[in-house]
Amino acid sequence: MSKKIPVGILGATGMVGQQYIRLLENHPWFEVAYVAASPQSAGKKYKDALRSGWIVAGELPARVGGMTVEDVSDAAKAAKKCAFVFSAFEIPEKDLIRKYEEDYAAAGVPVFSNASAHRATSDVPMIIAEINPHHLDIIPIQQKQRGWKKGFIVVKPNCSLQSYLTPIFALQKGGYPVERMIITTLQATSGAGYPGVASLDMVDNVVPYIGGEEEKSEQEPLKILGEAKGGKFVPYKGLAISAHCNRVPVSDGHLACVNVLFGKKKPAREKILDIWKKFRAEPQRLDLPFAPKQPIIYRDEQNRPQPKRDRDSDKGMAVTVGRLRPDAIFDFKFAALSHNTIRGAAGGGILNAELAYKKGFLKA
Amino acid sequence: MSKKIPVGILGATGMVGQQYIRLLENHPWFEVAYVAASPQSAGKKYKDALRSGWIVAGELPARVGGMTVEDVSDAAKAAKKCAFVFSAFEIPEKDLIRKYEEDYAAAGVPVFSNASAHRATSDVPMIIAEINPHHLDIIPIQQKQRGWKKGFIVVKPNCSLQSYLTPIFALQKGGYPVERMIITTLQATSGAGYPGVASLDMVDNVVPYIGGEEEKSEQEPLKILGEAKGGKFVPYKGLAISAHCNRVPVSDGHLACVNVLFGKKKPAREKILDIWKKFRAEPQRLDLPFAPKQPIIYRDEQNRPQPKRDRDSDKGMAVTVGRLRPDAIFDFKFAALSHNTIRGAAGGGILNAELAYKKGFLKA
Amino acid sequence: MSKKIPVGILGATGMVGQQYIRLLENHPWFEVAYVAASPQSAGKKYKDALRSGWIVAGELPARVGGMTVEDVSDAAKAAKKCAFVFSAFEIPEKDLIRKYEEDYAAAGVPVFSNASAHRATSDVPMIIAEINPHHLDIIPIQQKQRGWKKGFIVVKPNCSLQSYLTPIFALQKGGYPVERMIITTLQATSGAGYPGVASLDMVDNVVPYIGGEEEKSEQEPLKILGEAKGGKFVPYKGLAISAHCNRVPVSDGHLACVNVLFGKKKPAREKILDIWKKFRAEPQRLDLPFAPKQPIIYRDEQNRPQPKRDRDSDKGMAVTVGRLRPDAIFDFKFAALSHNTIRGAAGGGILNAELAYKKGFLKA
Amino acid sequence: MSKKIPVGILGATGMVGQQYIRLLENHPWFEVAYVAASPQSAGKKYKDALRSGWIVAGELPARVGGMTVEDVSDAAKAAKKCAFVFSAFEIPEKDLIRKYEEDYAAAGVPVFSNASAHRATSDVPMIIAEINPHHLDIIPIQQKQRGWKKGFIVVKPNCSLQSYLTPIFALQKGGYPVERMIITTLQATSGAGYPGVASLDMVDNVVPYIGGEEEKSEQEPLKILGEAKGGKFVPYKGLAISAHCNRVPVSDGHLACVNVLFGKKKPAREKILDIWKKFRAEPQRLDLPFAPKQPIIYRDEQNRPQPKRDRDSDKGMAVTVGRLRPDAIFDFKFAALSHNTIRGAAGGGILNAELAYKKGFLKA
Repeated sequence: MSKKIPVGILGATGMVGQQYIRLLENHPWFEVAYVAASPQSAGKKYKDALRSGWIVAGELPARVGGMTVEDVSDAAKAAKKCAFVFSAFEIPEKDLIRKYEEDYAAAGVPVFSNASAHRATSDVPMIIAEINPHHLDIIPIQQKQRGWKKGFIVVKPNCSLQSYLTPIFALQKGGYPVERMIITTLQATSGAGYPGVASLDMVDNVVPYIGGEEEKSEQEPLKILGEAKGGKFVPYKGLAISAHCNRVPVSDGHLACVNVLFGKKKPAREKILDIWKKFRAEPQRLDLPFAPKQPIIYRDEQNRPQPKRDRDSDKGMAVTVGRLRPDAIFDFKFAALSHNTIRGAAGGGILNAELAYKKGFLKA
Repeated sequence: MSKKIPVGILGATGMVGQQYIRLLENHPWFEVAYVAASPQSAGKKYKDALRSGWIVAGELPARVGGMTVEDVSDAAKAAKKCAFVFSAFEIPEKDLIRKYEEDYAAAGVPVFSNASAHRATSDVPMIIAEINPHHLDIIPIQQKQRGWKKGFIVVKPNCSLQSYLTPIFALQKGGYPVERMIITTLQATSGAGYPGVASLDMVDNVVPYIGGEEEKSEQEPLKILGEAKGGKFVPYKGLAISAHCNRVPVSDGHLACVNVLFGKKKPAREKILDIWKKFRAEPQRLDLPFAPKQPIIYRDEQNRPQPKRDRDSDKGMAVTVGRLRPDAIFDFKFAALSHNTIRGAAGGGILNAELAYKKGFLKA
Repeated sequence: MSKKIPVGILGATGMVGQQYIRLLENHPWFEVAYVAASPQSAGKKYKDALRSGWIVAGELPARVGGMTVEDVSDAAKAAKKCAFVFSAFEIPEKDLIRKYEEDYAAAGVPVFSNASAHRATSDVPMIIAEINPHHLDIIPIQQKQRGWKKGFIVVKPNCSLQSYLTPIFALQKGGYPVERMIITTLQATSGAGYPGVASLDMVDNVVPYIGGEEEKSEQEPLKILGEAKGGKFVPYKGLAISAHCNRVPVSDGHLACVNVLFGKKKPAREKILDIWKKFRAEPQRLDLPFAPKQPIIYRDEQNRPQPKRDRDSDKGMAVTVGRLRPDAIFDFKFAALSHNTIRGAAGGGILNAELAYKKGFLKA
Repeated sequence: MSKKIPVGILGATGMVGQQYIRLLENHPWFEVAYVAASPQSAGKKYKDALRSGWIVAGELPARVGGMTVEDVSDAAKAAKKCAFVFSAFEIPEKDLIRKYEEDYAAAGVPVFSNASAHRATSDVPMIIAEINPHHLDIIPIQQKQRGWKKGFIVVKPNCSLQSYLTPIFALQKGGYPVERMIITTLQATSGAGYPGVASLDMVDNVVPYIGGEEEKSEQEPLKILGEAKGGKFVPYKGLAISAHCNRVPVSDGHLACVNVLFGKKKPAREKILDIWKKFRAEPQRLDLPFAPKQPIIYRDEQNRPQPKRDRDSDKGMAVTVGRLRPDAIFDFKFAALSHNTIRGAAGGGILNAELAYKKGFLKA
């Protein structure tokens, strides 16, 4: 029998849920032991509950395909079967997601969520493992405030900001905080889930709008860079962000064009490259299974990063940056890319769970 | 016999050359009477000289298909056959293009050029007909300086800036000059000509780099907004521009995401919309055949403009703008779109020739 | 006041409905006077009832945009307001569509349908105007059998077969009936409506399956080539068809690769080209507004027809054929293309109504 | 020092050459020890000789990036440095490729070629390792006929036929030879190399023509299924093939829609599935490193195989088949897919070299 830690997936039949199952196959610590979805799917074999089939890369692992889908509203059952769950809901009803996630936490099941429902909740940490691992320290306070014993909720941020926030944080940590950023993203269609964006909108076209994405891109970084005070997170005030978000006909990989203005200290170009090259953080120090060896990869070619050619760097967990050059208005501009359904979704969620496990927040 | 003005196309077999031929079919004033290309093509029937066939929309006009391709180096022959030429060269050798265009002008043949070779030449006007029609007034000075009698050279700017410069100019003319702009473009593959961008770079991909495009996007607007002094154009100094240029898998239509900071006076959002809606200029007043009725179209839908759905507005000659909203760092941000091979290439060139003709610069 | 014939659109807010509205703008005989959709849309202004906006080419005609959407279940109201209706339903419930269409016919409103619900109904003619215009002669019999006075139902066939059936029919009429055909289609995503095919299925991908399409491609031609006997259509028995249907990342334009085996008489290649070139039929003789001048266009280039470059031939109403060459197994093979949302949907429906009108089946 | 067998790559800087380098990294037996290209590239470091950069997946292996590119015309030098070479030429001059390959063989260097130059050469075996491994037995005869000592030439067939020929062969071997096949392919753009197909031909388009591809698809299978007699291969006479070849906007993965007519014996559907499932051949028996575990994978879902989702099956070396169903004209039809730049190019070439090595044709 496996001695791995049993984990559950909420919203297991959607694209993000499938991605979790795919990435957790052969995980050294965790094992999918529980798949939950809507009442309509409950009771079916997982492989039979997939309305559009297995739509992510590779084959559906046979072991999971044969598992029975549980009703997602039965948090008590999950509490008996798994040590924690990944929330991969893709339904539009945020209130319902919020409630489900709280129900699981209340039932003693820690929740690592990919959904946006709890990102603005003041005592819920929003983690990028290389940036704010210490935000997990709010967990005991969150539990106390909520009256939860073993359960808690941790979220990860929107996929759109993962390409540029780690590079920006690395500079801040290196002594060069950025004060202003103007960002334009070119985002992959997988960011909208499946079926998501209509193909008629993506054949010979781009769409200069993604609902809610610009607000998330402008606000979520401030919580991540902020600090907990009095049991809640206070956003960072030293950075202003302006974002345009575009949808482009790319399957995976969000690209961002970024203009940055530094505060009092402005680094030289070579200094920036050096900081990025040397940047390592908690996931690397803890040698977490999903941690990229080098979190920020800089490519010298003038036409990189490109989604198709760079998204899979270090199994889709590294950020790739390129085209760092002086800016006629701000100080510098550059392009940054990350894999939105790996680093920006399931992979990032797994890394957060690994971090929480290694730091002792997941009790057996 | 036709009483239309006979015109020639230099580089007639390329994609831009084909676009000129397509758009000039049934033109009320002009008629293609001369097609010139490289020595290898010279002597062949035009339809037989097309290595990749007729690659633009519609059918090759039979009359042009049967014309004999002339050697582009024979400016003297062109002088006998046509009143002026459109330069549609797509070869990489800028020095050669510059020489050809000067040879035609010296031979008495006015040149309306789509090429970038002469854009930085100090006495060559770079015209967007709605913005700087008065720059044509340098023509007699250019002729005098060069010792040319009837010939002259007029150029149009890069296709990347045509989506946003007219809206910016309209605001400046309305009393609200913009001082700073940060732009990120999503440009169609037709901007690189044919065969141009490899399909392997455009299937499931975007490329965050277009050679020379950012420099053009940052510098050409300043010449267009500048003024002639002492026989040469002095760039406008009141505007700083920073540009990122990306190639995306779209056939036609360049989209730009724009952040603008106004000078002392900052208009209200409604004022901007009103200025754009009411903007009319010389081409509209002269009722030129290729002039769009309404040069700037604003769309209220939050997900527009889109290349596929908006590029053909007013036969591809109007600019479509949308998503005007406050900017967290500058004053406003918006998205703008124009058809790069019509407004941004052949259509814009034809409009410039119509303007020059109507204003008396083309003598019979 | 307009003296045009007032027509209605059922399912007016969908993509096909929009296409009807777009194509009927400025129609010389017909005018959209009535737009009907589901009860949720009823009562709204048409422009406000479009959930995803106006997604077809050009601008929503302002006059239609301001019309009030009617409840599609109120056939009696339609009977007062319009001379006939186009059925453009895109809902999956075929029984419901069948009932709606019968309700309208019973209420005295002729129905020209794009839906598949009544295609197999034995007394409903399925018309391609160039092939079986005489099938409209069943209308009085249909009315008698159904007890309908003024109303009737006429359908058009599936979009997938429109590229190759007219060329095959032309050969049959020319004395060379085809006995066997093997067809593989490469079909555009617009064939699935909007939102239809997910972009994740169409970025860097093709899908070798379209639900129900192969059956329609194999069976519908036999009804079209068949004859009415005893008040119902008897399928043609002289032709066997085998079809593969694929979805490809193209917005509009269905391409078919076709292998044909003739019966006793096998024409020479030149004979086939001659038959196609000279083929004209009832719509051309009657000079119907939507009739292509030349129904079958043959292109000599070895790499045509192509969806992007040939779909708009003769305003999207002509079929383009190319690559006719000997076949190692059957007699010949070729490629054929037609615009699936114009010729294969709204444009074909309008042509059928024009035919019925001109032949006197629509009484005022 | 490495004890692996040193191998060379001819045409190393092209896309197929890069693919060889990528796939050979960490190969258990072989190691890239020599990279050769045109005289213009010779003398440069490999990484500096890549005009368009490293365009295949993953990173350029640092060790190869630092190697000096050799002049491809210097076969004698290659003879000292490597045990055999992979010919990955993408130049159009077939005569030149033929000469180069013969020069290497004459110099004592076995050549495993991806090029088409020698496919029709009567004493050159064209190998699909699962189908005709015994064709390698002609090598001593080829050497004798040519006067070569150690060198020889082995080729692999066109990428278009690799998806369907192994399934057809499996049926033949199982006692059910196919007599007639009609095939329509939907081929990826990588099949044309880099830059290859223009993006303007592939955005919102398919092209129903690939130069020379239909001839190869119809003829090459007959050589592969044929037998050597009197020092040359005699094509198989029992099979007639008709092919349409289309280019579609997919990066990798050729799909084929296939109609098959059996000879005297026609298997039941379940028998076919059983034969495919159980099919194993020489590469599997020899447990070659690049051999897929299961050469033919059948997928039950009605919408598979799909290029994006199935091309990477078993590291891109397996063929994926689906949609086996009765055919209205022939006996059965199905869809088949293989990865054209792995199984159909570099991976297939490596498998052939592994086969030759294991069978003793490569002497140290």
